[in-house]
Amino acid sequence: MSKKINVSIIGVTGYTGMELLRCLLQHDHVEIKYLVSRQHEGTPLSKLFPRLSHLDDLKITNTDHEIVAKDSDLVFLCLPHKAAQDVVPTFLGKTRVIDFSADFRLDDKDIYKKYYHIYHQCPDLLDGTFIYGLPEVYRDQIKKADAVANPGCFALLVQLLLLPFKGQMDSADVIAISGTSGGGRSARDPVDHPYCAQNMRSYLINKHRHTPEILATSGLAEEQLNFAPTVGPFLRGIFANGFIKTASKPNTDIFKGHPFVRLVDKVEMTNVVSTNFVDLSYEQGHNGEIVAQGALDNLLRGASGTAVQNMNIMFGFEETAGLTFNTPFYP
Amino acid sequence: MSKKINVSIIGVTGYTGMELLRCLLQHDHVEIKYLVSRQHEGTPLSKLFPRLSHLDDLKITNTDHEIVAKDSDLVFLCLPHKAAQDVVPTFLGKTRVIDFSADFRLDDKDIYKKYYHIYHQCPDLLDGTFIYGLPEVYRDQIKKADAVANPGCFALLVQLLLLPFKGQMDSADVIAISGTSGGGRSARDPVDHPYCAQNMRSYLINKHRHTPEILATSGLAEEQLNFAPTVGPFLRGIFANGFIKTASKPNTDIFKGHPFVRLVDKVEMTNVVSTNFVDLSYEQGHNGEIVAQGALDNLLRGASGTAVQNMNIMFGFEETAGLTFNTPFYP
Amino acid sequence: MSKKINVSIIGVTGYTGMELLRCLLQHDHVEIKYLVSRQHEGTPLSKLFPRLSHLDDLKITNTDHEIVAKDSDLVFLCLPHKAAQDVVPTFLGKTRVIDFSADFRLDDKDIYKKYYHIYHQCPDLLDGTFIYGLPEVYRDQIKKADAVANPGCFALLVQLLLLPFKGQMDSADVIAISGTSGGGRSARDPVDHPYCAQNMRSYLINKHRHTPEILATSGLAEEQLNFAPTVGPFLRGIFANGFIKTASKPNTDIFKGHPFVRLVDKVEMTNVVSTNFVDLSYEQGHNGEIVAQGALDNLLRGASGTAVQNMNIMFGFEETAGLTFNTPFYP
Amino acid sequence: MSKKINVSIIGVTGYTGMELLRCLLQHDHVEIKYLVSRQHEGTPLSKLFPRLSHLDDLKITNTDHEIVAKDSDLVFLCLPHKAAQDVVPTFLGKTRVIDFSADFRLDDKDIYKKYYHIYHQCPDLLDGTFIYGLPEVYRDQIKKADAVANPGCFALLVQLLLLPFKGQMDSADVIAISGTSGGGRSARDPVDHPYCAQNMRSYLINKHRHTPEILATSGLAEEQLNFAPTVGPFLRGIFANGFIKTASKPNTDIFKGHPFVRLVDKVEMTNVVSTNFVDLSYEQGHNGEIVAQGALDNLLRGASGTAVQNMNIMFGFEETAGLTFNTPFYP
Repeated sequence: MSKKINVSIIGVTGYTGMELLRCLLQHDHVEIKYLVSRQHEGTPLSKLFPRLSHLDDLKITNTDHEIVAKDSDLVFLCLPHKAAQDVVPTFLGKTRVIDFSADFRLDDKDIYKKYYHIYHQCPDLLDGTFIYGLPEVYRDQIKKADAVANPGCFALLVQLLLLPFKGQMDSADVIAISGTSGGGRSARDPVDHPYCAQNMRSYLINKHRHTPEILATSGLAEEQLNFAPTVGPFLRGIFANGFIKTASKPNTDIFKGHPFVRLVDKVEMTNVVSTNFVDLSYEQGHNGEIVAQGALDNLLRGASGTAVQNMNIMFGFEETAGLTFNTPFYP
Repeated sequence: MSKKINVSIIGVTGYTGMELLRCLLQHDHVEIKYLVSRQHEGTPLSKLFPRLSHLDDLKITNTDHEIVAKDSDLVFLCLPHKAAQDVVPTFLGKTRVIDFSADFRLDDKDIYKKYYHIYHQCPDLLDGTFIYGLPEVYRDQIKKADAVANPGCFALLVQLLLLPFKGQMDSADVIAISGTSGGGRSARDPVDHPYCAQNMRSYLINKHRHTPEILATSGLAEEQLNFAPTVGPFLRGIFANGFIKTASKPNTDIFKGHPFVRLVDKVEMTNVVSTNFVDLSYEQGHNGEIVAQGALDNLLRGASGTAVQNMNIMFGFEETAGLTFNTPFYP
Repeated sequence: MSKKINVSIIGVTGYTGMELLRCLLQHDHVEIKYLVSRQHEGTPLSKLFPRLSHLDDLKITNTDHEIVAKDSDLVFLCLPHKAAQDVVPTFLGKTRVIDFSADFRLDDKDIYKKYYHIYHQCPDLLDGTFIYGLPEVYRDQIKKADAVANPGCFALLVQLLLLPFKGQMDSADVIAISGTSGGGRSARDPVDHPYCAQNMRSYLINKHRHTPEILATSGLAEEQLNFAPTVGPFLRGIFANGFIKTASKPNTDIFKGHPFVRLVDKVEMTNVVSTNFVDLSYEQGHNGEIVAQGALDNLLRGASGTAVQNMNIMFGFEETAGLTFNTPFYP
Repeated sequence: MSKKINVSIIGVTGYTGMELLRCLLQHDHVEIKYLVSRQHEGTPLSKLFPRLSHLDDLKITNTDHEIVAKDSDLVFLCLPHKAAQDVVPTFLGKTRVIDFSADFRLDDKDIYKKYYHIYHQCPDLLDGTFIYGLPEVYRDQIKKADAVANPGCFALLVQLLLLPFKGQMDSADVIAISGTSGGGRSARDPVDHPYCAQNMRSYLINKHRHTPEILATSGLAEEQLNFAPTVGPFLRGIFANGFIKTASKPNTDIFKGHPFVRLVDKVEMTNVVSTNFVDLSYEQGHNGEIVAQGALDNLLRGASGTAVQNMNIMFGFEETAGLTFNTPFYP
C-alpha cells in the first residue's frame, strides 16, 4: 500500500482531465505532481469547478514540460489530436506517458491522414512506440509499455462488443448512441441544450475517426463494418447495438479475469453511468446474426477510467484501484 | 369546402385519442359527434387537459355504441388491443371504422396468438374485412375500405424505411428508438421520469408485437429481419437506423405523390416531431448494405396523424387536410 | 381579409427571428418582403433550418436598409441591444418599426447605462418616440405608434403577474425560471447541454436588465422589488412565482378583453409552451401576501408572439391573427 | 476503527431505502443485519436493482420485527407515514430507531391531523420520545436519543436556509423546486416522463406537509411563512429561493463545525447532487430582505444522508462517515 508514484496531467481542465483527476485523487498509490493547463494557469481549480471547493490546495500551473517529465513517473496527456503530436516527443524517453488523443492509436500514417484529414507530424512514432490501451486485449504489452495510446470512447465500446467474435465475423453493423458530453468541454459540434434536449441524429456514418481503431482490433476489413455514430439527449453514457453476422457463439471466456466487463441479460445505460464497467449482452438473432448490446460511461470507461486502468497495469497496481465509484443504486 | 362528416372517437382520453382530437378540430370537413370514454364520462375535457380550456363545449360521454354508430359517418377506436375486439362487431356494417389497436392489423390468428399471447375473439374478421392503413402502400384499397386497421408506430416507420427495397432485400437489421410517450398514457411499462430521464434500453428484441406488421409489408421472412425496439430519454419521436442487405438502389420513386414522406440528406428527429412527416435517408454503406435512417412523431405519423390521413383517403378529402402543424422552426 | 402589408425582418436567423417568421407566415394580412441577415446572406433558410424545407422560396438577403425601409410597411428589428441603436435611425420616419432589443424600452439614459453598462447612442430617442409594447397596458398608444419597443421576456411575464395590483403593492418578491432557449441562439452565457441538463441556478439577482422595465410598469420603486432570474433544465418557457405584499385583492378585471391572458386555478408551464398565452393564478397567502404564479412561452409571448400582437394592434388587424397554434393537447 | 454496529432497514426497496443502503455499505462501522421488505421478500436485491449485481450476498427478508429489534443496534424505518405508526411501538425500548416517515416529526397531534388528514395512532409518543433529526440544531439531543425522526426533504433545506435568522425574521417567503425523484418510488403523484420532462408546476402552496416542520425549527408562526413547493424537470435535487424580511445579517457562525453545510457565493444545484452537502448563499436584497438560496440532494441530504449523519452522531462515529461520495467534478 505504501508505494506511490508521481503523476501529472497536461490539459486538466477538459471533461476527461477532470474525470481523470477524480479517479487519481482517490487512488492510494498516486501523488498528484502537476496539473498543467496553458489556458487556466494560476486559476484555482475550485474557481473553475465549484464542486472542488474542498480541495483548495490543487493548483493549475503552466510548468515547463521538461520539468513535468523529470518530476513525474507518469504523464497523462489530455489534449486534442494534433496538439498531442506537438508535445509527445518532449516526454518520450524521460517519463511514461498515457495519451488520450487519437494521434498514436493507429499504426499507419495514411489511415491517420484519411480519417483526420491532416498529415501526421511524427509518423516514425506510429510503429510500436505506443501500445494501444485496451486492457482486455493488450494487458501484457501495457504492463511493459512506456507509452500507451488510450482508446476513443466509441471505439472502446464497439471493440469490446465485437471481441467475443474476433476472427469469426462475416460482418458487423453497429450503431452507438452517445450523450452530449461526448463532444468534450469545448465542443465545436453543436451541443447547446435547446438543440439537443429532445433530439436524435447520426453523423459521419462510416467516416467517424474511431472506425480504424475498431477495425484494427476486431480483425474486420473496412468493407465488413458499418458504423453509425449517433447523439442522444442525455448527458453521459454510450449505448451500442450491433448486428453481427457469425456462425460462432460469443466466446465470452475472453473476459474472464477482466474486472470491468460484465455480461448481463439486459443492458441498461444507467447501470454503467458513473462507473468503469462495460455491460454487454448477446442474443441469438435471426439471419445467422447475433444481436449484441453494450453500454459504458463515455467519460470513465470511455476515456479516463480506462486510462487509470492502463496506469494500474503499467505500474503493477490492482487493476481496479481508483476506479470504484459509490454511484446511486436507484434511481 | 362544404362537405362535412360526423366523426366520433371511442377512448378519447389517451395520448392518441387527444392527438386525434387535435387534428380533427382543425379539419374543415369534420364535425365532432361523440367523444366517448367510459372512465371519464361527464368530465369536461378541459378539466382533464387544461390546454383545452378554450374548448369548453367538448363533452365526454359514455354514449351507447349503437347510437354512436348510427350517428357517425366514421368512428375512431382508440382502445388497447383485446378491448377493440369486444366493440368492433358493434360498429361494422353500421358505420366506417378506423381502429388504432393491433387487433385487426394481422391476417392470421396464429401469428396474433404468437405475438399477443391471447386468442383472437373474432378470427373470422381477420381476412380482408380490415384494410391495413399504410397509405403509401394501400391507398387505393383504403379509398374503398369501410374498416381500416391503423398501423403500430414502430411498424409504420420501419415499413416506410424498408419500402424502397421491397422484394430486393436479403435481410434487414433495424433498431428504432422511441420517446417515452410511446408507452401510452396508462403505460404498464415503467416510464416514470426518474427511471427514464437519462436512460437507454432495448426490450423484446425480435419479439415486439409490431414485428409481424413489418414482415407483412416488407416481404421479408421472419428469419430475414432483426428488430431491436429501444426507449430513449425524450418525450416524442422515433428515430430508426436500418442496415439493409441489398443489391438494389433505393427505389424512392414509390414515394412520389405521397405528401408525408420526405427524403432528406440527414435525418434529425426534431425535424419531424409535432408534424405528420416521415423523414428518410439512405446511404450506401459497406458490405453491400444500405444504411437507412428514418424518424417520425410517434403520436402523429406513428398513430393519430396516419389515422386522419386514412380518413382523408376514405372520404376523398385532401390527404393533408387537418395535418398541417405550425411547429417551431428552431429550436 | 384582403388587406396585406409588406413586412421585413432584420436579423431573422436568431431564435426570435425564426419564431416571428413562423407567426408571420401564417398571418393572412402579411406579405414577407425582406428577410435580412448580414451573416447568412444568400443562404437558403431551409439550409440553416431543415424544418423549413417546404419553404424553398424564402431567401435571406443583405438588402440595404434604406431599400428595406422604403419597401416595407413595417420592419421588425431582431437584433441585440446596442446593435439596434445603430440601425434604428435609418428606419424611423420612413417605415413603422417594432424593435426587439432593449435599446428603446427605457426612457432614461442613466438607467440604461446602469443596467446595460454602455452609454446610449441616441438618448434623444428615449423620450416618447417608442411606445413600450405591452398590449395589456399600452394598447391605445400602440395603435397609433410608429415605433414600438418590444418587452423583454422576463419583464413581460413579471409585469403581467403584478399588474392586478398596480399602485396597491407594498413590495413584490419574484423568482422567474426560464428555459435554456432564453439565452438566444448565440448565447454567451453557458447553455451547453452537459452543463444545463440537470441544473438550476440563479444569476444577476436584482441586477437583471429586465428589472427597470418591471419597475416602470408596476409602479414599484427599485427598493420595493426583489427579482431572482433563474435558469432551469428545459427548452422553452418561463415559470414565475411572486410573493406580493398588498392589502388588495387582485384586480383581474383589467385583463378583460385581452385575448392572451388566462386566469387559471393552477399554472403549469407546459400549458402555455408553444402558445401565445400567459397563464396567471393568484392565491391568498399568509402575512398579507398574495402568492402569484405565471407562465408563458419565452420565445412566443415573451418575444415574437407579443411582437405580432403589437403589429396587429398597430395595423388594426384582429389581435390574435397569426397567433393561433395547434399545439399538442397532451402530452 | 474496529467498533461495528448491527443495522437493519425496514422498507429497503424504495428510493430512500436504497440510498441508505448505499451509504451504509461504505460505512466502516456498520454491519448490515436485515434488509426487510414485505413485498419483495426473497428477491435478490440485484434482481430488483441491476446496479447491485456485484453484491449478490444481500438478501431481502421478511424477518419478524421482534427478531430484527433484538438483533440490531439500530433500525431504520423507511416506510410511508401511517405505516410507520404501526411498527414503531414494536421497536421502541428494544433497539434504537431512525424513522424516515413524518409520523414522529411533530409534537402535536392536531397539527399532524391538520396536515396529514388522519388521526395519529400513538399521540402519546409525540412528546419527546423522538428527537427531530436535524443535526445542525439538535446534535446534542441526537447524541443521546434512542429514537430520531428524520426530517422531510423540503423541510430540511428550508430550515437550514432560514436558520441564520432564527428569531430575527418578520417573515419568510420560500419557493423550493424538487426533482421528480422527490415523489418516491411508488409515487401516487404523476411523475411519468411525458408529463414531467418539460414542465414546471407548484402544488399544495402553504399546505405542504413539510410546513409545520419548518415552522417548528424556524420559530416562525404559520402566518409569517409562505411556502410554494414546486416540481421541476430533473431527476434529483432541490433548489430553494427565499425572500427573508429581517433587520439582521445572517448569523452563519451557527454552521461552524457542521461539516455538511457550505456557504457559497452562488448556489448551483448540480454542485450538491450526489453529495450530502447543503449549499447556501445569502445576498442583501431590497426592501429590508435577504435573498437566500440553497440546494441539496433530495435523496441524500434530504433523506438518507441525514439519516446516516444522525446515526453517526447517535453512536459517536465521525459525522461524515459513510457520507463521502466520489461524484463527478464536471460535468
